Amino acid sequence: MSDEPGRLTRLYGTPAHRAASEALAGWMSAAGMSVERDAVGNVIGRLEGERPDAPPLMLGSHFDSVRDAGRWDGTLGVLAAIAVVERLQAAGRHLAVPLEVVAFADEEGIRFGTAFLGSAVLSGRFDPAELERVDADGVSLGDAIRAYGGDPTSLDAAARPAGAYVEVHIEQGPSLDESGVALGVVTAIAGQTRAVLRFSGAAGHAGTVPMELRHDPLSAAAEVVLATEAQARETPPLVATVGRLVVEPGASNVIPGFAELSLDVRHPDDAARAAAVGRLRERAKHAGHARGVRVEWEELLDQPAVACDAALSERMVRAVEGAGLPPMRLASGAGHDAAVMAAIAPVALLFVRCAGGVSHHPDESVAAADVALAVDALARFVEDFAP
Amino acid sequence: MSDEPGRLTRLYGTPAHRAASEALAGWMSAAGMSVERDAVGNVIGRLEGERPDAPPLMLGSHFDSVRDAGRWDGTLGVLAAIAVVERLQAAGRHLAVPLEVVAFADEEGIRFGTAFLGSAVLSGRFDPAELERVDADGVSLGDAIRAYGGDPTSLDAAARPAGAYVEVHIEQGPSLDESGVALGVVTAIAGQTRAVLRFSGAAGHAGTVPMELRHDPLSAAAEVVLATEAQARETPPLVATVGRLVVEPGASNVIPGFAELSLDVRHPDDAARAAAVGRLRERAKHAGHARGVRVEWEELLDQPAVACDAALSERMVRAVEGAGLPPMRLASGAGHDAAVMAAIAPVALLFVRCAGGVSHHPDESVAAADVALAVDALARFVEDFAP
Repeated sequence: MSDEPGRLTRLYGTPAHRAASEALAGWMSAAGMSVERDAVGNVIGRLEGERPDAPPLMLGSHFDSVRDAGRWDGTLGVLAAIAVVERLQAAGRHLAVPLEVVAFADEEGIRFGTAFLGSAVLSGRFDPAELERVDADGVSLGDAIRAYGGDPTSLDAAARPAGAYVEVHIEQGPSLDESGVALGVVTAIAGQTRAVLRFSGAAGHAGTVPMELRHDPLSAAAEVVLATEAQARETPPLVATVGRLVVEPGASNVIPGFAELSLDVRHPDDAARAAAVGRLRERAKHAGHARGVRVEWEELLDQPAVACDAALSERMVRAVEGAGLPPMRLASGAGHDAAVMAAIAPVALLFVRCAGGVSHHPDESVAAADVALAVDALARFVEDFAP
Repeated sequence: MSDEPGRLTRLYGTPAHRAASEALAGWMSAAGMSVERDAVGNVIGRLEGERPDAPPLMLGSHFDSVRDAGRWDGTLGVLAAIAVVERLQAAGRHLAVPLEVVAFADEEGIRFGTAFLGSAVLSGRFDPAELERVDADGVSLGDAIRAYGGDPTSLDAAARPAGAYVEVHIEQGPSLDESGVALGVVTAIAGQTRAVLRFSGAAGHAGTVPMELRHDPLSAAAEVVLATEAQARETPPLVATVGRLVVEPGASNVIPGFAELSLDVRHPDDAARAAAVGRLRERAKHAGHARGVRVEWEELLDQPAVACDAALSERMVRAVEGAGLPPMRLASGAGHDAAVMAAIAPVALLFVRCAGGVSHHPDESVAAADVALAVDALARFVEDFAP
């Protein structure tokens, strides 16, 4: 179900998105769950437990997509959870606590630039100021929620309790594929520093200004690019990326006068990330100083890491071993709904191998056998779950 | 005389350019020279010598400009030459050989993209295929020459002999200003290599791809940027510049998939330049190889250095000393009409200090006292000239 013919694009509040939510509600219902849609459009299926008042075990992921997306990002986790419910029902198993399957309406945030909208509402962490955001057509998020049948003024009432939150998601990276392992249990969702570095030097004629009289901002920037790569290589699992680099005036026969680059640094341990960022900041300062180039460092984001719950994750490792796989553990460099849900409940996150680590692209690919293993592991986890 | 109000822009064949050529002809005539305009619009003033059939000593530079130019680039050399003729006449001096002052109609090539048009025609080195070039309004060079009163079919007949060619020009670089010296004699006009380097790697998620699985083309490109700077610093007077660097897709949270940079390498000695280019080419190959990044090297230009005539230049050094200045010698990293004229005559090139090396900009600035010294040195050179 897509907004665009020939490729998968399913943005919050569109007809394709609504059709997908109705299909999910139908499958949840067919699996024996009671189903409701909350004020923002999250679809929640519920299977009662022996203790109806106990906070539920919640399984979930999101069902919106990026533009020209793959088929597995988000959706896999929702469908795996529904498959687990079907298996429980087929086996006549009853859980001690209620089981809820949540399909979050918006995680990618493509239409309104609001990542984690669904889990923010469900966890009671939504900021009403976001309602003023508008999409490319000038429609506000508030109006979109209303048009979708929700009530933007009662989003805080949509908050729900959870005893635990467990998510299955494709890895969106190559580590499992490289290791030849189908599943991995996530230890933490990496914290992230984002910064913009600006280098101001002096433009000049490429033929007439001797090297010792230059103030070349691109050379200083290049030193930071290499220092970033070296820092991350020396201190795994740090990853650090310069994704954007702009040079002005950008003519082949003119020494640059200005350069600007983006820096993205991630690590599951906040202290290790802060140390690496500090070292890069020193390197940038020295790279500029050595060339008479002024360096400005603007930090855009300093987002702490989110630890998955150790006890819950060890149960998931045992479930993975029960499914016949080795106990693979890894960190997540990308954000997920689990990172938001961690604010209100212990969380566990199970990664499924995707071919070559390709994601956010139509080539995104997951093996059917790996999906079956993920469902098996998640079912074992749920069957053995005790709060 | 400018094509644009409030700033100096004097492109080939425009009303301002024609007005400038008429003013120059008037000043040459007033200085006692016979004046003609050749088929492309070069203005040539001539003072007969004792041996009228001897090839003339030619002094010159250009009178076109870049857009939003400074006042001194080119024009200074023409006016200095006219001032020298005035001084010869005032002193009643007669030269053994004819003296010609040439104001080249187009050196910058802004309108048609044809650098050195004036000196190419005068030296008999013009390529008629260039006549097909068109300006931004679709006017061909051939039509522009015709509209200017010239004859594009007889440009080869405009070739003239020269016994020697001597040019005064602003340095357009900071070396004289840094050294605190008003004048410098140019030993050679640097040869130049221009290349485009393309780095093809693999784009990926900045959070999920571990460092050891990356193929980051920007890191490889950054290594070449630093190697370029280091190579030039280690082997002066080499200058080497990466002026343009483009990264794709250029998003802060995406590992780049592609990078492209421009390389500009100049040295007055061709063998030294070739050796430096060869070393950079090896470094680019290794920088790519170490990261699984494909590197393509496309050479756009390999222009040999042009040596100034040693004997003529030593006479110019003595003239500079006669004007009371130290014997400063330097190479030129920028091209000049003298480089074209070197094909038909021994050449000498005298640089005049410009403040901060700023050129091709309205802030271009030359001290009046330095102009007086340049005229004095050129006059001494001409007075002592013997072929």
